[in-house]
Amino acid sequence: MTKTNAGNFFEDFKVGQVLTHATPRTVSEGDRALYQALFGSRFSLQSSDEVGRKAGYPQSPIDDLLAFHIVFGKTVPDVSLNAVANLGYADCRFHRPVFPGDTLSTISKVIGLKENSDGATGVVYVRSTGRNQKDEIVIDYVRWVMVRKRDKTSPAPQTEVPTLGAVVDPKSLFAPLGVSFKGFDTVASGSPHLWDDYEVGEKIDHVDGVTIEEAEHMMATRLYQNTAKVHFNQFTEGQGRFGRRLIYGGHVISLARALSFNGLGNAMLVAAINGGRHVAPCFAGNTIFAWSEVLDKASLEGRDDVGALRLRTIATKDLPCANFPGALEKGYAEGVILDLDYWVLMPRR
Amino acid sequence: MTKTNAGNFFEDFKVGQVLTHATPRTVSEGDRALYQALFGSRFSLQSSDEVGRKAGYPQSPIDDLLAFHIVFGKTVPDVSLNAVANLGYADCRFHRPVFPGDTLSTISKVIGLKENSDGATGVVYVRSTGRNQKDEIVIDYVRWVMVRKRDKTSPAPQTEVPTLGAVVDPKSLFAPLGVSFKGFDTVASGSPHLWDDYEVGEKIDHVDGVTIEEAEHMMATRLYQNTAKVHFNQFTEGQGRFGRRLIYGGHVISLARALSFNGLGNAMLVAAINGGRHVAPCFAGNTIFAWSEVLDKASLEGRDDVGALRLRTIATKDLPCANFPGALEKGYAEGVILDLDYWVLMPRR
Amino acid sequence: MTKTNAGNFFEDFKVGQVLTHATPRTVSEGDRALYQALFGSRFSLQSSDEVGRKAGYPQSPIDDLLAFHIVFGKTVPDVSLNAVANLGYADCRFHRPVFPGDTLSTISKVIGLKENSDGATGVVYVRSTGRNQKDEIVIDYVRWVMVRKRDKTSPAPQTEVPTLGAVVDPKSLFAPLGVSFKGFDTVASGSPHLWDDYEVGEKIDHVDGVTIEEAEHMMATRLYQNTAKVHFNQFTEGQGRFGRRLIYGGHVISLARALSFNGLGNAMLVAAINGGRHVAPCFAGNTIFAWSEVLDKASLEGRDDVGALRLRTIATKDLPCANFPGALEKGYAEGVILDLDYWVLMPRR
Repeated sequence: MTKTNAGNFFEDFKVGQVLTHATPRTVSEGDRALYQALFGSRFSLQSSDEVGRKAGYPQSPIDDLLAFHIVFGKTVPDVSLNAVANLGYADCRFHRPVFPGDTLSTISKVIGLKENSDGATGVVYVRSTGRNQKDEIVIDYVRWVMVRKRDKTSPAPQTEVPTLGAVVDPKSLFAPLGVSFKGFDTVASGSPHLWDDYEVGEKIDHVDGVTIEEAEHMMATRLYQNTAKVHFNQFTEGQGRFGRRLIYGGHVISLARALSFNGLGNAMLVAAINGGRHVAPCFAGNTIFAWSEVLDKASLEGRDDVGALRLRTIATKDLPCANFPGALEKGYAEGVILDLDYWVLMPRR
Repeated sequence: MTKTNAGNFFEDFKVGQVLTHATPRTVSEGDRALYQALFGSRFSLQSSDEVGRKAGYPQSPIDDLLAFHIVFGKTVPDVSLNAVANLGYADCRFHRPVFPGDTLSTISKVIGLKENSDGATGVVYVRSTGRNQKDEIVIDYVRWVMVRKRDKTSPAPQTEVPTLGAVVDPKSLFAPLGVSFKGFDTVASGSPHLWDDYEVGEKIDHVDGVTIEEAEHMMATRLYQNTAKVHFNQFTEGQGRFGRRLIYGGHVISLARALSFNGLGNAMLVAAINGGRHVAPCFAGNTIFAWSEVLDKASLEGRDDVGALRLRTIATKDLPCANFPGALEKGYAEGVILDLDYWVLMPRR
Repeated sequence: MTKTNAGNFFEDFKVGQVLTHATPRTVSEGDRALYQALFGSRFSLQSSDEVGRKAGYPQSPIDDLLAFHIVFGKTVPDVSLNAVANLGYADCRFHRPVFPGDTLSTISKVIGLKENSDGATGVVYVRSTGRNQKDEIVIDYVRWVMVRKRDKTSPAPQTEVPTLGAVVDPKSLFAPLGVSFKGFDTVASGSPHLWDDYEVGEKIDHVDGVTIEEAEHMMATRLYQNTAKVHFNQFTEGQGRFGRRLIYGGHVISLARALSFNGLGNAMLVAAINGGRHVAPCFAGNTIFAWSEVLDKASLEGRDDVGALRLRTIATKDLPCANFPGALEKGYAEGVILDLDYWVLMPRR
């Protein structure tokens, strides 16, 4: 019997099944530095221990999306090694900060299954939960992927599709505990605009573009121990659908988030991801641009130091965003690659 | 009103104005490792905590140029986002060491302005000062850049050009306090040549060459949170003057410094930069070579363990330096890209 | 007299001579993160401080091969700067773990010399020993390289060739002291297969492939302060034998080791390298695959928690390994680039 991991096929998943993923991973200042070098983020809370301490943290927390990618990466060998497509995320909440020295691990519970009419694939819904070494939940989210069947003739499972809200209820967002952003230093952060200054419907072009190199997206994706084959193997991908390596969707999310600093410089924490769609593939050589729209605003119960903004950030390839390219009546404008709907936290006046 | 940062234009600067730059940045062992991977430096003091402790430091300090690039990077969004050209540096002094855990921030004071005769641009002179979390000065330097005007019709400011010495007076160099390099281990450092062994006029070919990749210079430049657009965006630069991304001049300085180890292996600290000129642009694919000339020697008051060498290091692209290519009567030899004049500290016998 | 290091030529080596190499290097979490980003390893013991502590370590040790590359890199300026070919390694043993904060340095003793019949080159045999800051041996190994003579007319030394066993005696392997792998968590490690489950003669295709980029192998090799010229200088190499930069052989070893996780997920420690041959050169753009054969099994005296497996791992370029390409009667199958024979330690049931 082979000792290599062939991954799970559609018929291997059962509703209610719990998958405990390898490999626990201790986060370090080395990860923070690499994330900085790969994405160039400038949010002051993740850049400076002094800013972190002033708010009441023991030090600067690591970037929320770095934690997300590490939690996510662990699920790949068990959930999506035989995936045909990543269909979506929903109901992703960031429960607590991650600091260097914390060790992250992830479990996933199968919460839905639906075989496709072609009999060759099916959709698997999982809720994945990342925890730290104290067994505290750090991040949880729902994801659904289309997975190949091992055998077309194996019987279809009972269809069960979870009900997922389109938006995380802002009442359920986790406000950062034991810290306060009263008097947040907006000179240090590089942006004078606070939660109070943003209006629903406001659109912001993040202006700058950044070109992706093969070495960069592979280094990032390996940093997260994400083993999806399509990102790393030019020999095989060169003979495949696109003729080249596909970039991890999360890489585009992190680039868009870093670009969004220009216009959203105080959006210091990600509180939730309502949904994300990778609209078109992204390859090395593409230059990524982004723009955002404020979809909603919410105050947090008992907190006058920080509020929530619901943002929609669109990322494009080789397409500047001054004209806010986005959703058409049917599909998306040519060049759009990411449509991300999420809640951020921003200090209030 | 847009919330994105368009940067300052020439008419936004006033002599005497102080710009407090975002984003404070805590330096870590992760930064040191990345700097090592990107430049391959081998100076023993920055490589080994044991060498640092033997001299009297709490641990190994980080590379002086890494600190410089972080201090410099913060000035870009406020000073040079609309720069046409970086014209020069002067009077740069390194005041004290930086260790992992230190948080760096930078302010700049406008010390000169001179509109160009074309009425479209002007030269801005700033003195930038980098400090650590204890508000101690780490590095300060003068820089001048040519910046676009927002509006050609806006009136020219009173011309004011600061008087800058061509060389930092060696009497004003900061000798490292509380440490001693008596009995410096030259076997561990990899070079038997100490301050006493170098002669004014001596030329050293650093022999080796190193080719730059796009991923490398972009990772380095993002590590410093330097946001200059020309380094990152192939979509826009591909349509521009050079048809490609331009490499941050500081990247070449760091490569030249790392190459200079071969011949200057005990030049362990940079004490000052007298002046630096980026003579020609540098692109990915270029192979960098370097050579140095000893311009001067100086002892430091009250110190017999360490002395100063004034060096001129020339870096070239695709041009080995066995013949010491450099300044011609008019301009520079083809292939020269950097002319750097600086003081280093080296242990004495 | 030039102050640059021209390296040693064949006639500079004497049997019995001890070379104390520069530069001591403190290992950090930054090195671990970069190694992770460059190779994507997933062995749980090197990924998680919690897994390390559960076994009895103070924290997670760094990857054995990262320590090896750092120890090895120091020898290059003195041993192989004028090498024509790296001929082999033998008798490499890993004595004790390396943790962030440890400072590594290396000495080499010349143990053999043999001039070639061409009179222009000779083979140098050295035993290199890496130590930590407590002067404890971390790694030692024998290596032999073909080195150019400075002067063809200089007399040949007495031929002296050390006797080297083909295999490190498993009785001489260093079992990890003060720790126990009883009840090793195979869910966290991602592989249910322990020492007891592997059979001599068993072959494992590691399935996945990974493409190498120039930026990656140069960053890795600089991280180890390995200065071999052929890896970095496209200007010179472009005019050379291959027309391009050659990838450090150790880079392929680390990629093969990371790929071997798929099938050998509990081979958590490298105990010895019996021998290694770089069969063919490797270049950026190559996609690396690997397979392994279990050559032998050994128990360790007094230990029922951990046993040794002798593995032969073959790495290929642009050649998937489902058919186990390897040694032919004469030479190797086209596409094979590495033939590595080594002992790993794996928890027992």
